[in-house]
Parts: sequence; structure tokens; C-alpha cells
Amino acid sequence: MKRIAILGTGSVGQTYASKFITLGYDVMVGTRNVSEKLAGTAKDGFGNPPFREWHAANKTVKLGTFKEAAGFGEIILNATQGVNSINALKLADGNNLNGKILIDIANPLDFSKGMPPSLLPELSNTNSLGEEIQKTFPGVKVVKTLNTMWCGLMVNPAMINGGDHNAFISGNDADAKGKVKEILKSFGWLDKNILDLGDISSARGTEMYLPLWLRFFGALNNGAFNIKIVK
Amino acid sequence: MKRIAILGTGSVGQTYASKFITLGYDVMVGTRNVSEKLAGTAKDGFGNPPFREWHAANKTVKLGTFKEAAGFGEIILNATQGVNSINALKLADGNNLNGKILIDIANPLDFSKGMPPSLLPELSNTNSLGEEIQKTFPGVKVVKTLNTMWCGLMVNPAMINGGDHNAFISGNDADAKGKVKEILKSFGWLDKNILDLGDISSARGTEMYLPLWLRFFGALNNGAFNIKIVK
Repeated sequence: MKRIAILGTGSVGQTYASKFITLGYDVMVGTRNVSEKLAGTAKDGFGNPPFREWHAANKTVKLGTFKEAAGFGEIILNATQGVNSINALKLADGNNLNGKILIDIANPLDFSKGMPPSLLPELSNTNSLGEEIQKTFPGVKVVKTLNTMWCGLMVNPAMINGGDHNAFISGNDADAKGKVKEILKSFGWLDKNILDLGDISSARGTEMYLPLWLRFFGALNNGAFNIKIVK
Repeated sequence: MKRIAILGTGSVGQTYASKFITLGYDVMVGTRNVSEKLAGTAKDGFGNPPFREWHAANKTVKLGTFKEAAGFGEIILNATQGVNSINALKLADGNNLNGKILIDIANPLDFSKGMPPSLLPELSNTNSLGEEIQKTFPGVKVVKTLNTMWCGLMVNPAMINGGDHNAFISGNDADAKGKVKEILKSFGWLDKNILDLGDISSARGTEMYLPLWLRFFGALNNGAFNIKIVK
């Protein structure tokens, strides 16, 4: 049974954990402080129930620290908030990342300058979160993908337009990208709709799309949409 | 006959000038220095012939300084390079812009930091070229649109996918946006595909899409594509 670590316990992490369980993976979710996380009783900023409720209903998902999860996983998925991702990965410990694939679906959103959020200046335009992770942990194989849509669609593209819309993939390691593409296909993504944008610097493009995504979301008032490239 | 000024003599400006002539407008193209522009014999950076050749074949298009063109036009279209737009509009003179609609299709691309270009840091993320123009010339009604695609498609959406793909519109003045929407419809844009993203600050979204557009262009190797929102 393939072991996957999901860093981040929010609704995005939960969505992936449930999906990977369905697909037969052995899943551990990583968090900063396990006992604090399980003790929390407050809803999150979007009104979702506390993690403990979700976990009580999803007992097959293991829970550990970032470090325990990263040590456990053969593949790591970064579902932490972009502003916290580098710190979370430092807690995971680079030794637990070396040689592994890190699927990075986070965006460096900066909520400190009003809504809709902008991007963290140091992680945009001539840099990106994907690149920063790759530079900070040169031994891991970062593959940036699926960060251009609402999490429900990431793992269930068939929800809209018969599954006919686009996902993008960025990374320096062709073999790692190929393996992540197979995971996307297991979610229902069509091979023809997964566009390889090149090396990890192309994460600048997908991350900088977020401000437009947020305006689409504001205009459409519903997250269940995506873009399809037409020619 | 409706008078329109097109600021910028490059291939984008030429594309719009030809289209507006076809649609029955009286068109003046504005440039920094008319005699220099007509004397130039070099191809541009993309291998396009010098402006004088295009102009010789398009004699019905008037040519003037930025100031003359802005004074002439009832509507102004900014087709200058984003890095030069504010200066070009200053040469056009705010008095020639006041009360008019300015259609801004430019992007603040920064070619100084390698290819593909990034965005000018001072005009991205928490600002945009569209907003900067609006702040600098508060008397003009800036409408940002069509900056998310190759110029050939801007004025001829039917070229791909039966015309079924999206254009976006940003601006503070609802009446100005309504008039620009009518112009887009005269190009062939379908009403249902023109999405109003809100006030001019939403230009951040469409301008920040350019780095992703450039990666799509790199992967597809052809500019005749666009995005369609699917739900």
C-alpha cells in the first residue's frame, strides 16, 4: 500500500486525505502540534467544523507531526497555507524529504493587505512558492500542480463540464512529473488536459493566476469552475 | 463617424487600427515622434515590417503625435508597451483625456529580468497598470479589457472555438464599461462571454495572468488560444 503524507489539516488537506483513502493509499496527515489540533473545537475561518470532527469520521487517516508524516510518506503533499509552507517543511525536516516527490498545491496568498488577497511579494513575479520550496530543499522533487482551482475540483474534475478542463504541472524532474500525472489521472483528469508548463519556475504562472481566479470567484460567486484552453 | 485614437504603432496598434477602419471608424494612430516613426526602416523585435510599410498600405489611418491623436479621439485606446504607457499618456496630455473612455489593453511586462518577462514590480500584485493610469488621470474613464490574449484574437474572437471563449472587463464607470462591451460585441465577442470583473483594481487579476499566458504560449507554441471558463 502506497504511503502518502499530507501536510496541512484544513479543508484542502482533508479533501486529499479522503480521496487518497478512497484510492487505497495509506495516509498520514501532518500538523504542527497533534494534541493541540485534536483539542481544537472552533470552526475554521470558512465555517468548517474543527479537525477533530472530521478525523473522528475518518479514523483510517493517521495523524502525526509534520516530521512524523514526512518520515512516513513515500510521497508528500503540501496542503499548508502558502504563508506557512516553508516553515512547515522545515519542521518536516529536509532529511525526510530527500529523494521524494513533493506535490505542492499551495499558493502564497497574502491576506495582510486586504481582500481579495494579493501574493506574498517575495514569492511572486520573479519567484514563486514552488521555486522557493525547491531552492530551500534541493533534495526533494517539487511538482507544482492543481493550485489553480477549488479543492473539490482538484480531486474530482468530472464534477464540471464532463471533466473537460485543464490542470497544469511544473517541475524540474521529468520522472516525478510523470508520476504525479498518473496520480492526477487517478483523480479523473484526462491525459490531454494535463499541460506540462516546464520547469518549476513556471509555478510563477500558475500562482500568479490566483488573483484572477479570485476575481472570477467574486464574479461567479461559486468555486466550482475552472478554465479550459481553447484553440 | 466615430473618432478613435490608438496610441502605439506596433503590431497591436496596427491590428486595432485596421479593425476600426473596417468597422467604419475615423482612426488616428498616435506616436511619440511622427517623422521619426515614418523614417524608420527596421523590422521590429518580432520581425514585423517597419510602420511606414503598414501605413503606406493603410492610408485611411491618420497619424499624429500622442497629443494630436488624444485630442482627435472621442475614445482612446492604449496599445503602447506597458512600460511606456504612463509616459505616452502624459505626452497625450490629461486635458485631451478628461471625460473620455480610455480602453487599456496593455500589460506592464518587464523584459529587463530575462525571458519570459515578469511584470513591473511597482505595477503588479497590489497595483496594476490599469489602476496606475486611472490614478494618474482621474478624469479619464479607464476600461481594462482584452489584455489576456494575442492581438489577432482580440479583434477576431471567431478565429478559434467558434468564438466561444472569454474576454474580461474592469473599470470604475459602469456606463463606460457598457460602451466598451458594445465595441467588443462589434468585434464578434458574445455577450455571455464578456465577464465584468468589477472595478479597475480587478485589472490586477488580468494583468497577473500574463505570466501564465506566456507559459501557455511556450507550451503550445502558438498564440491563437484563449481560456474559457467552464462550470
